Amino acid sequence: MNEPVYYRCINESCNAEYLIGSRPTFTCECDDLLDVIIPKQKGSREYWIGLYNSRRNCARYPSRAWQFAPWVDPGITEPVTLGEGNVPIVEAPARLRQWVGGNLRLYVVLEGKNPTGSFKDRGMSPLVSRAKKHGAKFVVCTSTGDTSAALAAYAAAAGIRCFVILPYGKVTEEQVLQAKLLGATIIFLKGSFDDCMRVQLELVKHYGMFPGNSIMPFRIQGHQTLIFQVVQHFGWTFPDWFVAPVGNGSNCSSLGLGLRTMRECGFDATSRILGCQSEAANPLYLSWREAGGMKATREGWEKVYKPITVGETIATAARIGKPVSWKKVIREITISNGAMAMATEAQLREAVIVAALSGLFLCPQSGQALAGLKNAVAEGIVAPKSHVVVVSTADGLKFTKPFSGNLFEGATVHECDTDEVASLIMAA
Amino acid sequence: MNEPVYYRCINESCNAEYLIGSRPTFTCECDDLLDVIIPKQKGSREYWIGLYNSRRNCARYPSRAWQFAPWVDPGITEPVTLGEGNVPIVEAPARLRQWVGGNLRLYVVLEGKNPTGSFKDRGMSPLVSRAKKHGAKFVVCTSTGDTSAALAAYAAAAGIRCFVILPYGKVTEEQVLQAKLLGATIIFLKGSFDDCMRVQLELVKHYGMFPGNSIMPFRIQGHQTLIFQVVQHFGWTFPDWFVAPVGNGSNCSSLGLGLRTMRECGFDATSRILGCQSEAANPLYLSWREAGGMKATREGWEKVYKPITVGETIATAARIGKPVSWKKVIREITISNGAMAMATEAQLREAVIVAALSGLFLCPQSGQALAGLKNAVAEGIVAPKSHVVVVSTADGLKFTKPFSGNLFEGATVHECDTDEVASLIMAA
Repeated sequence: MNEPVYYRCINESCNAEYLIGSRPTFTCECDDLLDVIIPKQKGSREYWIGLYNSRRNCARYPSRAWQFAPWVDPGITEPVTLGEGNVPIVEAPARLRQWVGGNLRLYVVLEGKNPTGSFKDRGMSPLVSRAKKHGAKFVVCTSTGDTSAALAAYAAAAGIRCFVILPYGKVTEEQVLQAKLLGATIIFLKGSFDDCMRVQLELVKHYGMFPGNSIMPFRIQGHQTLIFQVVQHFGWTFPDWFVAPVGNGSNCSSLGLGLRTMRECGFDATSRILGCQSEAANPLYLSWREAGGMKATREGWEKVYKPITVGETIATAARIGKPVSWKKVIREITISNGAMAMATEAQLREAVIVAALSGLFLCPQSGQALAGLKNAVAEGIVAPKSHVVVVSTADGLKFTKPFSGNLFEGATVHECDTDEVASLIMAA
Repeated sequence: MNEPVYYRCINESCNAEYLIGSRPTFTCECDDLLDVIIPKQKGSREYWIGLYNSRRNCARYPSRAWQFAPWVDPGITEPVTLGEGNVPIVEAPARLRQWVGGNLRLYVVLEGKNPTGSFKDRGMSPLVSRAKKHGAKFVVCTSTGDTSAALAAYAAAAGIRCFVILPYGKVTEEQVLQAKLLGATIIFLKGSFDDCMRVQLELVKHYGMFPGNSIMPFRIQGHQTLIFQVVQHFGWTFPDWFVAPVGNGSNCSSLGLGLRTMRECGFDATSRILGCQSEAANPLYLSWREAGGMKATREGWEKVYKPITVGETIATAARIGKPVSWKKVIREITISNGAMAMATEAQLREAVIVAALSGLFLCPQSGQALAGLKNAVAEGIVAPKSHVVVVSTADGLKFTKPFSGNLFEGATVHECDTDEVASLIMAA
């Protein structure tokens, strides 16, 4: 197969290169992660702007992500798509903006409005497109929820079987139900998410199974389209900061990749990346602090990084003590002159509530990003009046449990009497 | 206030006209519903196409709905928006297409990807924009779920209080929780949805409260943007059919209005409307049949129409025996040379499952529309190879209950052993 793209090891002292398809493990012989390399493409900044603007309003491109196909995967001509990337980019309502502080030009990208309700769809579409192209009979993933739903949906659309390995008792019923309804076979294991991930990685490494997690480099290729889309939205100008929650690390990895891709294509992509972790699952925040915070170098940070045992948090999708893509996160944060921030449990919960009372129904991981941003503003890392885009990663509908009380039980139920109801409302 | 728009009674033998703001009840003195009238606007078909295409790729228009502001409400300069209308329009996957039959050119608009997870957002944005403009201190609605979430969100964004009247025990916890988290005050009443609606209508009529339901004509103004957006998506060509579930009737009302608006602005808007009801809540289907089916006239159908007592269905959001907008549904279906269809409970459930196994996670009401379409194809009402657009009204995540078994209880939980898991997968 004569592919227009190839793999290269992310470890710069290795940098081994591989043909696509030659690494069923999707990792380097040195065990490090791989990047997809698209050889330098012809075209000026103006060429790309013209091309992508012309695709904005065209039924031939129902997916906002695949509008950027030359930068995602030029080797795919018939993508498996469900319309990913058609999400709102909204100005933060006044109340939320005030809560964050710093008088920011603050925007939120509602990635939860992707087909299966999370940002994962952007990357899963190219991943499954590749699985289909390479004749995979099934795909397998480990997931706290969003990944499994996304993989199940795209696998269903492609007619490929999907197996989801889940830590029993660690995911909400809604999250499992979605993957199951979408046709996935669920395999429950005793243990944590990290245990399941180990099993999955071994299934890939020893049995050559096709993985659905972000170890598979084409996922990041699709995921970076968020950058392209946001920059296009703002008339091809770059926000000062992109802010994302960090769980396994695929958001920061892909934000960084998106910026680098655009730099290679003639754009002055100067945005910085702020990665936000919860107090319960903060290995990258802790090691960044230990490496000197804003003075941390890539090498210094890598050196002190170590996985942690996670605590309890409502931000379950980012409750990961041993992020698969930790090296990519460190690379992208340092290259972009970015930073890490942390949110306490109380802060991230408050962020979700303030957002809701402003009209935005977000997930706890989005709260983690917003609260982290608030702290970074307070610390002076993010300057006042900056243009900031926060990635809201999943739909709040997937994470209602932590906020539910006993809504029905013990509720006052009134008679169907208009005057009584009117009095109630007037008195409220 | 010198408004560029006014109200007119939908009853053609009345046709009374009112200034905006002069009818706090939002109904005519004759008790009929009102239309918003925008006086004939200057501009050719080409003018509108040029205007709207230029707005497609512009950060000044983060809402796909408000890009069409001249056709929605030229009296609003600062809309209350959460980015509504940025939803995917996807080609139906092969499996779903085959299930429907007729070898259709079949597309699905994922309205569930609107900010609060349903089509209601399109109309709620102009409604709350009007409430804000007119200084309303609070808004009130009755809702099986989607309406309350949408009203709560936009009211929160506008800084207006929101009261939601709900039939106790008739809505899922997720649905109430969303409105509640979004800051709404919930008032539970004994009785059915129809009882609550009566109370709400009386609150509007006798107490001048600002309503959130589709009696408020600006909701339909916003809701019709679905038509504009789909037609723009297909290069300003019109599908043969638009298919929507019918509950209170706002989908069909707004589809029809959208087509008429475009005809007034020089477009050859020939699409037909297929309204689909479940067997449990089918007053409009039954009366359409009684009035002669495809031969039904507007007058004949209105004459035989009568409300019904609803049965049980998983399509709870459309479980309405006395649709507020029944007259508008009859008007739009007959004007568009459209039709009604019915789906049995088994059929609509099957539609949801087939869609999920194709990668689309839809709500039961969307299943109602897809199953209705299947029946209309089988009956020869929708011709083979037609270009058909189905409105998928809400996110499947809001309606998971009917499909949940005991996912966790009694599930087999395996050891974290890679070889064992590999065997499981190979044997599956």
